[in-house]
Amino acid sequence: MTPTTATAENPRTITRATTMKAIVKAKAAEGIEIHTVPVPTAGPGEILLKVKRAGVCGTDLHIYLWDRWSQGRLQPPVTLGHEFVGEVVEMGAGVTNVKLGDLVSCESHVVCHTCVACRTNLAHVCENTRTLGIDINGGFAEYVAVPAVNAWHIPPGVPLEVAAIMEPCGNAVHTAFAGPLSGCTIAVTGCGPIGLFAIGVAKAAGATCVIASDVSPYRLELARQMKADAVIDVSKEDFVARVNEITHGRGLDGVLEMSGNPKAMRDGLLALRNGGRLSLLGLPTEPFELDWNRLVIFKGITLHGIVGRRMYETWDQLDQLLRSGRLDLRASITHTMPMEKFDDAIALLREGKAGKVVLVPWGESA
Amino acid sequence: MTPTTATAENPRTITRATTMKAIVKAKAAEGIEIHTVPVPTAGPGEILLKVKRAGVCGTDLHIYLWDRWSQGRLQPPVTLGHEFVGEVVEMGAGVTNVKLGDLVSCESHVVCHTCVACRTNLAHVCENTRTLGIDINGGFAEYVAVPAVNAWHIPPGVPLEVAAIMEPCGNAVHTAFAGPLSGCTIAVTGCGPIGLFAIGVAKAAGATCVIASDVSPYRLELARQMKADAVIDVSKEDFVARVNEITHGRGLDGVLEMSGNPKAMRDGLLALRNGGRLSLLGLPTEPFELDWNRLVIFKGITLHGIVGRRMYETWDQLDQLLRSGRLDLRASITHTMPMEKFDDAIALLREGKAGKVVLVPWGESA
Amino acid sequence: MTPTTATAENPRTITRATTMKAIVKAKAAEGIEIHTVPVPTAGPGEILLKVKRAGVCGTDLHIYLWDRWSQGRLQPPVTLGHEFVGEVVEMGAGVTNVKLGDLVSCESHVVCHTCVACRTNLAHVCENTRTLGIDINGGFAEYVAVPAVNAWHIPPGVPLEVAAIMEPCGNAVHTAFAGPLSGCTIAVTGCGPIGLFAIGVAKAAGATCVIASDVSPYRLELARQMKADAVIDVSKEDFVARVNEITHGRGLDGVLEMSGNPKAMRDGLLALRNGGRLSLLGLPTEPFELDWNRLVIFKGITLHGIVGRRMYETWDQLDQLLRSGRLDLRASITHTMPMEKFDDAIALLREGKAGKVVLVPWGESA
Amino acid sequence: MTPTTATAENPRTITRATTMKAIVKAKAAEGIEIHTVPVPTAGPGEILLKVKRAGVCGTDLHIYLWDRWSQGRLQPPVTLGHEFVGEVVEMGAGVTNVKLGDLVSCESHVVCHTCVACRTNLAHVCENTRTLGIDINGGFAEYVAVPAVNAWHIPPGVPLEVAAIMEPCGNAVHTAFAGPLSGCTIAVTGCGPIGLFAIGVAKAAGATCVIASDVSPYRLELARQMKADAVIDVSKEDFVARVNEITHGRGLDGVLEMSGNPKAMRDGLLALRNGGRLSLLGLPTEPFELDWNRLVIFKGITLHGIVGRRMYETWDQLDQLLRSGRLDLRASITHTMPMEKFDDAIALLREGKAGKVVLVPWGESA
Repeated sequence: MTPTTATAENPRTITRATTMKAIVKAKAAEGIEIHTVPVPTAGPGEILLKVKRAGVCGTDLHIYLWDRWSQGRLQPPVTLGHEFVGEVVEMGAGVTNVKLGDLVSCESHVVCHTCVACRTNLAHVCENTRTLGIDINGGFAEYVAVPAVNAWHIPPGVPLEVAAIMEPCGNAVHTAFAGPLSGCTIAVTGCGPIGLFAIGVAKAAGATCVIASDVSPYRLELARQMKADAVIDVSKEDFVARVNEITHGRGLDGVLEMSGNPKAMRDGLLALRNGGRLSLLGLPTEPFELDWNRLVIFKGITLHGIVGRRMYETWDQLDQLLRSGRLDLRASITHTMPMEKFDDAIALLREGKAGKVVLVPWGESA
Repeated sequence: MTPTTATAENPRTITRATTMKAIVKAKAAEGIEIHTVPVPTAGPGEILLKVKRAGVCGTDLHIYLWDRWSQGRLQPPVTLGHEFVGEVVEMGAGVTNVKLGDLVSCESHVVCHTCVACRTNLAHVCENTRTLGIDINGGFAEYVAVPAVNAWHIPPGVPLEVAAIMEPCGNAVHTAFAGPLSGCTIAVTGCGPIGLFAIGVAKAAGATCVIASDVSPYRLELARQMKADAVIDVSKEDFVARVNEITHGRGLDGVLEMSGNPKAMRDGLLALRNGGRLSLLGLPTEPFELDWNRLVIFKGITLHGIVGRRMYETWDQLDQLLRSGRLDLRASITHTMPMEKFDDAIALLREGKAGKVVLVPWGESA
Repeated sequence: MTPTTATAENPRTITRATTMKAIVKAKAAEGIEIHTVPVPTAGPGEILLKVKRAGVCGTDLHIYLWDRWSQGRLQPPVTLGHEFVGEVVEMGAGVTNVKLGDLVSCESHVVCHTCVACRTNLAHVCENTRTLGIDINGGFAEYVAVPAVNAWHIPPGVPLEVAAIMEPCGNAVHTAFAGPLSGCTIAVTGCGPIGLFAIGVAKAAGATCVIASDVSPYRLELARQMKADAVIDVSKEDFVARVNEITHGRGLDGVLEMSGNPKAMRDGLLALRNGGRLSLLGLPTEPFELDWNRLVIFKGITLHGIVGRRMYETWDQLDQLLRSGRLDLRASITHTMPMEKFDDAIALLREGKAGKVVLVPWGESA
Repeated sequence: MTPTTATAENPRTITRATTMKAIVKAKAAEGIEIHTVPVPTAGPGEILLKVKRAGVCGTDLHIYLWDRWSQGRLQPPVTLGHEFVGEVVEMGAGVTNVKLGDLVSCESHVVCHTCVACRTNLAHVCENTRTLGIDINGGFAEYVAVPAVNAWHIPPGVPLEVAAIMEPCGNAVHTAFAGPLSGCTIAVTGCGPIGLFAIGVAKAAGATCVIASDVSPYRLELARQMKADAVIDVSKEDFVARVNEITHGRGLDGVLEMSGNPKAMRDGLLALRNGGRLSLLGLPTEPFELDWNRLVIFKGITLHGIVGRRMYETWDQLDQLLRSGRLDLRASITHTMPMEKFDDAIALLREGKAGKVVLVPWGESA
């Protein structure tokens, strides 16, 4: 009903290249390839972004290694990358929420808008979700086409590196905001990038004490830099005993489980005060058992399974936290490197010697 | 500050016997004994009840059989019975919330009022809970002394048999009210007495479809009498397939897990729509494993560990449901018998040939 | 990304007329006119409906009478009608959530999807809402074009008359579901059509007692037919005294204010128990004062301003209530008449001699 | 059931004076008198405190001036003072939650534990509340007797001056925590002591921007010292315009109304984004009107009437905020003076030249 198609007075595209470089999962085997591919076009309701920065996720490592999960999910060839920020350079028919030149970060879940979940404010668990960089071409490329509704204008003052990782930081916000935070003592179990973000998010959101745990001294040092109030090296210290000490016997109000580790989850449940909550984002590698009576039922615990980001409450919350300066993610970004050197990024992740790694596409300057 | 001690004009006791019969776990071994014991006295803040009716719980069977849990928890001798209704016949110092002659049902958790849980509206998970009939003498007797704050005036029009089982029905209310009910499709997995109550509660509270499952034709027939919209015999039918059929593919909005059975829980999670909730009251006999990714995380499920009753929101909710006539528990009470015949009640429970069994104390007429 | 444009194998329209009759607010003056106008076309993201039934709203009366509000809001000419059900006869580009021949009811708020409210699950208070039949052409016509996302498939077994009024009944659902219902005593103040729906909704959703008030014996009789547990004629009886009597001094848990009447609101607040809630949908004709201390602050009351319907949780809740048969709206529909006789419908509303009036468009048989 | 009475081995009192000084509203007229009165005794369930510090409240000024409200509520003689901290020097029968020598702050609402509100976690709106220092003797004295359940152990590291004002700061916590805070932009309208506390509470609890308004430069300076992100002098600036500027047009997520001023409330509602909340603690001096349609209904606003403190969730939240050091109230305490000089404190309040004034009882050193 608003005029949404291009006219001479109302151009809807910027002159651009017709081919581009992209990091492609080209074959059903370990590794990736850098290909020259056609620049995509913005279909109806879509926008085309010139990618400015992109984040590397643990999922990208799984895909690189072509593990069992990847084999069951991906259909090569597909351009990887589901964390990125870009500039709008083309708008498809009907797009009105952005304009050419806007800088936007991007929700990676492309949802159906039609299923019961989508119709009841649960689009993050849409039954028909397709994910950018996994099910459809993503942002490890010079350009990427995405649904316009998935775009989020980056808040003023936020550097491109940080804007690139709003998607995974949104996972942390979603997990943290799944239960009470203000005035709470919160543990973050697992200090990979999303755990690191969660430390910052919980503190910015009003947690009065944030305790971080991991087995890696490298990651625990990053946790300290993210201003965790206490860190626990669970390879050396007993989590529950340390929590009791730190909280003077009160226990935790909430746990943000980011490791997928069964012991972390059990210890987290043990260290919760009665009536506390544990929000689960970390993916266990396989099923594991729980003493339900002792750890969940008799304690009156609430458990949340968390995936994706509330669309778009989570983005709004993150926007406010970043915009205000209360949340500073920079310490969690340990490396920024050319997208061309994707193999190096993968090597860093395999070694566990990185927080978040951000990639700079061809032709962009760091 | 209010005068709360007895005077000639303000009697605080009714003339009564000095000894009474009671069902006592007298020894650390299977079975119970009927003893003649002194009638207890109402201490400060306590009331003495003349027991009118009492309900037999699965927990009483465990204690009778002297299973591992009982051995770790009970210290004989103790008078059993944590579900009962009685008449106030004596009021200790400071009691102002009841008067002589009142009929009251009774919360079985005697809490400390001091721990963090008690001070933050989570008294049902008080760290220092002692339970009537388990940790301290209960209501399978002619008289029982309880804290006055644990008394709940029975709603008008509610028969004594029903008033006697407000405590276990409160478990059902607590489980049901832990998540959305109005307009929801709810499954109750496990049709023992609390499951049967939960069917009635969910329907009275506005669930639009209540599906009950069990393996016992006897209990499924009781579920039908409690007006379940559909019943599933999981010894013969596939739970998930049947739920999909009944809900035309939508799945469940909520599961009230009353069986403690790992398969019931897994099937319940599978049959939930994304974003649904599963509230766990049934106690598994041992730890069991879950495919967390598929059943909880990717579906965005919320799990609640449930124990006891919110003190006293749950009682108020149950009171309103009963008082209005929307909740009718009578079909779930399959047997009423003299307390003297406690062994017969235990036999019925062992055979699985009973819904709720209600006992009539010595000297009371059915 | 899904093919969404018409092909020979995938027709996206049904042969249809090119002109149609419509009830048009043609001039800035009292009254309406029946015009012959072009049948609209489904633009991108839109669908064209063949209207089957439409409901007349109090707002239509305001527009007919051309009151001050109408003068400030409408820009004639506009086709009226924001409550209707129709058959999909044309699908614009990009539409995938319906197919030709589907019967759909329709959300009347056409929202921007871009403002903060739209992006945070508050689209019902979108800052840029345009309403069908007020700001853009509506459904008092043979055909109407609407955004495809605004369509809701009518639940099986629901008659067309009822499907036509899901929009105003959604107002009642939204108001009722704004606070606790299960086990609650709820008053509905004002028994116009939305009040009548609210009675049925509150009962179906688990309220244990629903008290309805009005000054019109005609409407109170309809309230009885909607199965209110008690009705209060506030022209003859004192609301607060009667509520105290009915609730035995407890007071109300919630009030659904549907009258816009200052006294109804004050009495509702007075009759609430401490900590209760009052949800306001009825629009006062002018500002009015409140004794905030006594009625709101000292009682710890929560007030909700309610407008529109949660998009689309409210529709899903209503769908479940109707589908299950627990909510039966038929008694609230007092008249069904040809759309041609719109003036008669307006007369009925002016006289207060109608519940909901449903219109049958030209060429449709009742 | 626990031994709770004094024995030689278990003393329950400390040797103390038999008379004391107290600030007494002795007559139904303006002013107060300093009397020598008997030291009270701790009855069953009560404790006697040696008062260490006490806060002066606006309510005390009302009582001093003997305004209409005071005339309708107080029955002289009564010892004033409902904000205080003290040392436990005597424990009545049945008290187990404190021990001699403990330093405790004190909830001022003495509730019935019996009404529906008390039984459903709404004791702060108990129908039978009596308030210390208003309905029963309070803490502007050397000693005060209070129910033991009203005592809250002061968190480690909190100075006596701050511990004395946990009660009014609890009002601020209750108001702030009535709606979302984390990541929110919150306005505090009215910078009296509770408004000043609310600024600190909202920031500590995770609000990303806190805007304070008042007409007094003195109080606005205190707001700045409490670290408000922006202050608005509404005697000179337009509140709504300034909020729009500060929030770049987004509007407020929440308003904490502390002034009781009709214009502050209307402006707060206007400046809220659609779907926001306004929590009302400030008491208007008389009823006032609202344009409900424009300010509440069409915007989908939620209003909370707030009184007292959640018992005792609010105390626990405040404890955590203070204990962690995230909430520092010291800048809000502008004067500390001997209790003897109560008239001077009243003078300061009348002149509006004070934040919170704290009194030091006879015999205590500042």
